[in-house]
Amino acid sequence: MRVDLNCDLGEGFGQWTLADDEALLGIVTSANIACGFHAGDPMIIRRACEGAAERNVAIGAHVGFRDLAGFGRRELAVSPADLRDETLYQIGALAGFARAAGSRVSYVKPHGALYNSAALDYERAEAIASAIDRFTEPLALMGPPGSQLQRAAETHGIDFVAEGFADRRYTAAGTLTPRSVTGAVIDDPDVAAAQAVRMVSSGTVESIDGDDVAVSVHSICVHGDSPGSVRTARQVRHALENADVTLGSFT
Amino acid sequence: MRVDLNCDLGEGFGQWTLADDEALLGIVTSANIACGFHAGDPMIIRRACEGAAERNVAIGAHVGFRDLAGFGRRELAVSPADLRDETLYQIGALAGFARAAGSRVSYVKPHGALYNSAALDYERAEAIASAIDRFTEPLALMGPPGSQLQRAAETHGIDFVAEGFADRRYTAAGTLTPRSVTGAVIDDPDVAAAQAVRMVSSGTVESIDGDDVAVSVHSICVHGDSPGSVRTARQVRHALENADVTLGSFT
Amino acid sequence: MRVDLNCDLGEGFGQWTLADDEALLGIVTSANIACGFHAGDPMIIRRACEGAAERNVAIGAHVGFRDLAGFGRRELAVSPADLRDETLYQIGALAGFARAAGSRVSYVKPHGALYNSAALDYERAEAIASAIDRFTEPLALMGPPGSQLQRAAETHGIDFVAEGFADRRYTAAGTLTPRSVTGAVIDDPDVAAAQAVRMVSSGTVESIDGDDVAVSVHSICVHGDSPGSVRTARQVRHALENADVTLGSFT
Amino acid sequence: MRVDLNCDLGEGFGQWTLADDEALLGIVTSANIACGFHAGDPMIIRRACEGAAERNVAIGAHVGFRDLAGFGRRELAVSPADLRDETLYQIGALAGFARAAGSRVSYVKPHGALYNSAALDYERAEAIASAIDRFTEPLALMGPPGSQLQRAAETHGIDFVAEGFADRRYTAAGTLTPRSVTGAVIDDPDVAAAQAVRMVSSGTVESIDGDDVAVSVHSICVHGDSPGSVRTARQVRHALENADVTLGSFT
Repeated sequence: MRVDLNCDLGEGFGQWTLADDEALLGIVTSANIACGFHAGDPMIIRRACEGAAERNVAIGAHVGFRDLAGFGRRELAVSPADLRDETLYQIGALAGFARAAGSRVSYVKPHGALYNSAALDYERAEAIASAIDRFTEPLALMGPPGSQLQRAAETHGIDFVAEGFADRRYTAAGTLTPRSVTGAVIDDPDVAAAQAVRMVSSGTVESIDGDDVAVSVHSICVHGDSPGSVRTARQVRHALENADVTLGSFT
Repeated sequence: MRVDLNCDLGEGFGQWTLADDEALLGIVTSANIACGFHAGDPMIIRRACEGAAERNVAIGAHVGFRDLAGFGRRELAVSPADLRDETLYQIGALAGFARAAGSRVSYVKPHGALYNSAALDYERAEAIASAIDRFTEPLALMGPPGSQLQRAAETHGIDFVAEGFADRRYTAAGTLTPRSVTGAVIDDPDVAAAQAVRMVSSGTVESIDGDDVAVSVHSICVHGDSPGSVRTARQVRHALENADVTLGSFT
Repeated sequence: MRVDLNCDLGEGFGQWTLADDEALLGIVTSANIACGFHAGDPMIIRRACEGAAERNVAIGAHVGFRDLAGFGRRELAVSPADLRDETLYQIGALAGFARAAGSRVSYVKPHGALYNSAALDYERAEAIASAIDRFTEPLALMGPPGSQLQRAAETHGIDFVAEGFADRRYTAAGTLTPRSVTGAVIDDPDVAAAQAVRMVSSGTVESIDGDDVAVSVHSICVHGDSPGSVRTARQVRHALENADVTLGSFT
Repeated sequence: MRVDLNCDLGEGFGQWTLADDEALLGIVTSANIACGFHAGDPMIIRRACEGAAERNVAIGAHVGFRDLAGFGRRELAVSPADLRDETLYQIGALAGFARAAGSRVSYVKPHGALYNSAALDYERAEAIASAIDRFTEPLALMGPPGSQLQRAAETHGIDFVAEGFADRRYTAAGTLTPRSVTGAVIDDPDVAAAQAVRMVSSGTVESIDGDDVAVSVHSICVHGDSPGSVRTARQVRHALENADVTLGSFT
């Protein structure tokens, strides 16, 4: 058994920082690095790429809406053509630093509101896949299994990396329970770690209603924007290792 | 005899435009494309790259300070390390579009206040050369002959493209007369065209004081941000062609 | 008979300009001045306020989404509380310049995508009305008659200024025909001017289907972002004057 | 004996925060609130104004360069006319929130690189004083004693609030020792508190060379961007209270 562990990185801007990037780079096998639109500036991106390259962590372009004030978490009505161009811009900007650090960009993962809408809206997903197509090196696309992102990746012949969440409850349909629902977020690190192990070893989770649901993933997403979330990430990793799951990038 | 003709392109942002990019692409052999920091957005950059690629116009990264409000024309005290990273970011972002259009970025030219300060300040010039070094494909550096940009390029083993201006008066030292001096800008298209021809054919200009000054260049810079400047650019091209100068990119 | 004539002003940014503000200030009686979020910078705002004050043109805060790249024309999922704060920020920033020019801000008009969504969505409209409430001087709110903006203004005891469009076709329901529909925009200046006169003198327009529709307004909106639109604006003004309509701000 | 205690507030942006604003509001008597150019967004500004108003803390406009990426700490070559307009914009934006919270803006203090350059450069200082002049309510100007800011305030008939630093060493000339010099920053809270008490009670400090230097101030600046700095701020306040100094805003 083998799985990738991914988290968001480089989500500061100028004087501001969000997560403990150094700690996270010691836990994950893939880093979704902010590209400057919702967070990240050239100095932060360089350090994130260098840190990832040193630890053999795969580099992903965490592309978002051009909305620093909203941290890319507010839906923005970008046209598909503009979204494609904005995605290519962000991938290219990151790629210069990834190569300078002796690595490369391996995949694209949309961030925040773009992640949510592109999972549901094929036009959105297709715009992102189209940007990947135009980039002259092969890139995978990461997103929720069964989403429009998966469909767009398959249409374009792009490798799709299905990801699951250790710390979020799933619905009976195998999708994430909205954060607005009580119990949607799993706060107990042990429960989160157990969900990750089960997802990898049996391809299922227990839904918020108590049913067994099939959720088959190549990567587990962990968070790092609070001291508690870094601890949970570490616990997820240990639980997977204890269950004889090999952690490694999907690349 | 052979010379390159370069101009700034893609200097709009969102709803705003500045020059007639289409007209300019029919005149020049190299396009300095804004990369999003002083001007330019992903859609504008894509169109500029596609237009340049179609007409076999070389693509340059016109890197500037992160200052849309000041159009990159205000000196900003960026540290050399930050300037290096900001330059690499801009080159990478542009490179994705250049490649998608079937071309590549061939050179880097600093814009506005960065051009002026990097021409005089070795630390600045070195930061730009250092970004070029880190980019994993060969890029030339364009700037004024004899400047710190030339020195930094030579130190790093980077091809240097010396450029001259058709519509600006030179001092006896072979540098540009500051715009604040009366007569610094040549308004008469015939005089500008004649200066360009003389610069290419004899490697000299008549200085603002009436002396002969050696100014040896590989490229002539023309402007396009007013209807008048597009006409001057066209006239410079015609005068060079009439003087049997071959126009072509330096690449 | 009396009506106000309003247009957008100060929609440049830094080096970029959009409309001929000087020409427009000679035509209208109210100026919707961009406040820096979708367009406008402090220098542009100052000049627009000074020009309006000199010509006794009323000053309105043309508040928009924080989206320079999209010119405020892309819907952005801002929460009502944030929208209220962003609106108050923009009003306050403009007010400093209006007072310095010897005038004051008289009204608020949402711009672009915010105008469209606040006309239909009460929460949005309420957030804008709430910002007006918090501003310590009385301000009117401008928008389409019968819209949620009108409802929110009435709930808050704010003067509402209903506006109509000279150059847009109305539906049988008295709302604007979407731009995507053929014939939605009236290109012929004579037809636009006639529609303005009819709207003011009889309180009706001919709908796109040929019916008489009641549209009762206090202000007519004209545009100025192209040479043609400035000509149309001038023609609307002349037609109104010729029909003995007094042009003057609603204040 | 009486002195004001001021600190920077509202220096976050969107998702990012910097200091513990709540803790600081319990310590100081004046809050320099970021206005959105180097830091601060409408929501943060509103909360800072409400918090200051509740605790009867005076509100100052902490105006900075338009440079979020550099946090206003990088010198930017803004022209005096533009600086005046950018300052007025920031004051006005803040004023809307101060009034909505039942308070008002009492003073202006330049931030970061603008503080440093306006202290030395009369044109800069004059541009800021000129913006204060144009604002239609009286505002004081805060800065280092004997600086060009003081001179410009006096020329314009603006109240000047001289401030000193508890945690910085002074030169024999009564100016701050540059941070680049070893020992320029006082890390020991006891030493910082003692310097504040001495500055207020005797109008002198011990210079970095061990001499007595006259430094007469109306306000002491404390910092809050680290847990340690909040502790120092608290200690400075306690030491002043123990020395029977009354803490209160200068207004």
